[in-house]
Amino acid sequence: MSQETSAAAAAPPPATVPQIMRAMGAAAVAAAQTLALAPTAQKDRALRAAAAALRAQSPALLAANDWDLREARARGLSMALLDRLRLDERRIEATAAGLEEIARLADPIGTLLAEWLRPNGLRIQRVRVPLGVIGIIYESRPNVTADAGGLCLKSGNAVILRGGSEGARSSAAIHACLEQGLKSAGLPATCIQWVPTTDRAAVGYMLADMADCIDVIVPRGGKSLIARVQAEARVPVIGHLEGICHVYVDRDADPEMARSIVLNAKLRRTGVCGAAETLLVDRAAADSQLAPLVRALLDAGCEVRGDDVSQRTDSRVKPATEADWHTEYLDAIIAVRVVEGVDAAIAHIGRYGSQHTDSIVTQNAATAEHFLARVDSAIVLHNASTQFADGGEFGMGAEIGISTDKFHARGPVGVEQLTSYKYVVRGGGQIRP
Amino acid sequence: MSQETSAAAAAPPPATVPQIMRAMGAAAVAAAQTLALAPTAQKDRALRAAAAALRAQSPALLAANDWDLREARARGLSMALLDRLRLDERRIEATAAGLEEIARLADPIGTLLAEWLRPNGLRIQRVRVPLGVIGIIYESRPNVTADAGGLCLKSGNAVILRGGSEGARSSAAIHACLEQGLKSAGLPATCIQWVPTTDRAAVGYMLADMADCIDVIVPRGGKSLIARVQAEARVPVIGHLEGICHVYVDRDADPEMARSIVLNAKLRRTGVCGAAETLLVDRAAADSQLAPLVRALLDAGCEVRGDDVSQRTDSRVKPATEADWHTEYLDAIIAVRVVEGVDAAIAHIGRYGSQHTDSIVTQNAATAEHFLARVDSAIVLHNASTQFADGGEFGMGAEIGISTDKFHARGPVGVEQLTSYKYVVRGGGQIRP
Repeated sequence: MSQETSAAAAAPPPATVPQIMRAMGAAAVAAAQTLALAPTAQKDRALRAAAAALRAQSPALLAANDWDLREARARGLSMALLDRLRLDERRIEATAAGLEEIARLADPIGTLLAEWLRPNGLRIQRVRVPLGVIGIIYESRPNVTADAGGLCLKSGNAVILRGGSEGARSSAAIHACLEQGLKSAGLPATCIQWVPTTDRAAVGYMLADMADCIDVIVPRGGKSLIARVQAEARVPVIGHLEGICHVYVDRDADPEMARSIVLNAKLRRTGVCGAAETLLVDRAAADSQLAPLVRALLDAGCEVRGDDVSQRTDSRVKPATEADWHTEYLDAIIAVRVVEGVDAAIAHIGRYGSQHTDSIVTQNAATAEHFLARVDSAIVLHNASTQFADGGEFGMGAEIGISTDKFHARGPVGVEQLTSYKYVVRGGGQIRP
Repeated sequence: MSQETSAAAAAPPPATVPQIMRAMGAAAVAAAQTLALAPTAQKDRALRAAAAALRAQSPALLAANDWDLREARARGLSMALLDRLRLDERRIEATAAGLEEIARLADPIGTLLAEWLRPNGLRIQRVRVPLGVIGIIYESRPNVTADAGGLCLKSGNAVILRGGSEGARSSAAIHACLEQGLKSAGLPATCIQWVPTTDRAAVGYMLADMADCIDVIVPRGGKSLIARVQAEARVPVIGHLEGICHVYVDRDADPEMARSIVLNAKLRRTGVCGAAETLLVDRAAADSQLAPLVRALLDAGCEVRGDDVSQRTDSRVKPATEADWHTEYLDAIIAVRVVEGVDAAIAHIGRYGSQHTDSIVTQNAATAEHFLARVDSAIVLHNASTQFADGGEFGMGAEIGISTDKFHARGPVGVEQLTSYKYVVRGGGQIRP
């Protein structure tokens, strides 16, 4: 006891948030320089060693997570949040396997994107390089620590991870495994840093005061986080807004395909950003298709909020208000509206959608092309479920999210989207006339 | 007279800056939807018709410019600024020819960037689309009105142009020619809008309050504009910072090539962002190369500000201070420093450079590759002048500037860099398991 007391007395005063963050920023910039030149094999070794550490230390991870869960329960967190926070053997294994999957991805860094020779003999190459330092601000899921850390590592970027306070002990334990992987591969442990303070001022500092050392911020979280990022960020952001995704069932849709796609798009998983939130049905198909679709949704346990026409199909349909067309439910609830054909569907999506993922169901190829060309969303689909909005389903490997921005990265953000490029020009003494 | 008075009395109150800007934003969003789908031939027709209008209306343009110049002279603008502001027959012809050159560029929109088939039969395409609405904030050069307007048009983006007050009449006259071109091609005149108020509040409004209708801002101007944009922007920005460009003369440089490249990089044109501002000379080459290089620069009329070693080579060399390494002179002035080999050169560039364009002169291929891999600039060159930092010299056609950002666009910003992409997915009823 007396030892502890004297150690505490001798300890320096606690660092302030700006001091902590500035030190992390400087360390990240230095690590990024090393990491930008690290060979693929070395990065992959770090990823595999981190996966092994996660498996080996799963008892410690579960203990840390148990502590987080007990505290979260005491604070009255919802069952859904508790579930997101929870680790178990299966989830730890999935997280470790995810790192190994990232190790198997092609390394984007150093890729020759284009090469050409100028008439004056200059040879110009466009070469993929890392962005530099990435800041990730996320909420409760502890596995984001590993996923985001791994994706940044593979893409040659140093990363500063700021997780939510609810999962702090779990994230710290996962982060320790990542550090172990880095060290065992001979890379600086500062390639992946984890903000050790739960002080919310750290988020503000990252957003507004670290433009000189953070090249891009990726927020992963709910509306309040996104709103804060949009209001405060002085650093470029890869936005990851809500997914207000639509399925439009056209007059020329195959009824069985429409039913299958609508049920899957809404209900396969309701909590993902690619889940459909609004069903639009062509008035010309309303007589034949609307009632069966609404009934299938209701029978599958989905709450339906419909416009006047939809309400008349089934007594269980609740009335939709204007707010419903704007809402990402992330739950077994769907808004249903009858529209006057494909152009009205496009107009509805343009007005209420979030430029995430939208699908048309039709057997008419011309109508499909009309829709695909005019709906200005990251992902537009013909005769397929919106739930395919996923980097893995696209064959791009792991992703950090789906960008609803049009700037820099749109759609799934995987290792390639976390890069920039530079022009390398080789000459023989050329000067410009 | 009485007619004028009564008309003034009957006129509505003048619109406020927010009213003007909101109306322009809404018009731009609507125009962007049309323009995104406009065929290449229609856009090119508009560009060629605008070029013809510029030529046909050159007397009116010269008269408007004369007015701007007289006012600018009365306000005591510098000769350099007056020269930037000046239009003459040759510059009008060059501006018209620039629009015709943009018409000849390949249309990036609709280009298939990638296409693949998933095992489940989904066919995924990544297709180039416009960004949407671009805001350009520029200063005195009236020809930016045509260059930027033309590049945005070709890349399918609606644009809101905000020029400096000095060139307002000239820019308005050029803008009228662009509108004429759009109309004659059957495109909305609102594809290219020009902010009609010189109230500086319009710039603040574009930066902070139009995130819902402007997709990206491109600032073109000096330090004070860039600083304002960085402080106020809530909209993504394609940055165009200063070019503190370096030439590093290595121990293995060919002396004649070094002399030729250094003189060209500094003096071909001193006012461009790709002009060299600092010469770094390897200490191992100082005995043989430093004095001739310094003398050649001085003899060519360049002021030289050197470190201790450089000062000893010639009595005309002035002492360099710390501030010189940070300075973009844009003038016939160069800072000269002796460094301990390529790694010290890389470190100097990392510390003082602006990640724009940097060149190494050496006959040693390994040293060159070491430099090219480690200097984190948009453009890195081996044995070539930094003055090649130019979209035209890269074979990319006209450009709106050189981006020093790593996010979205890096290096020359031409029509391709003013685009985004979307994923178009075609299926046959696939649902996600």
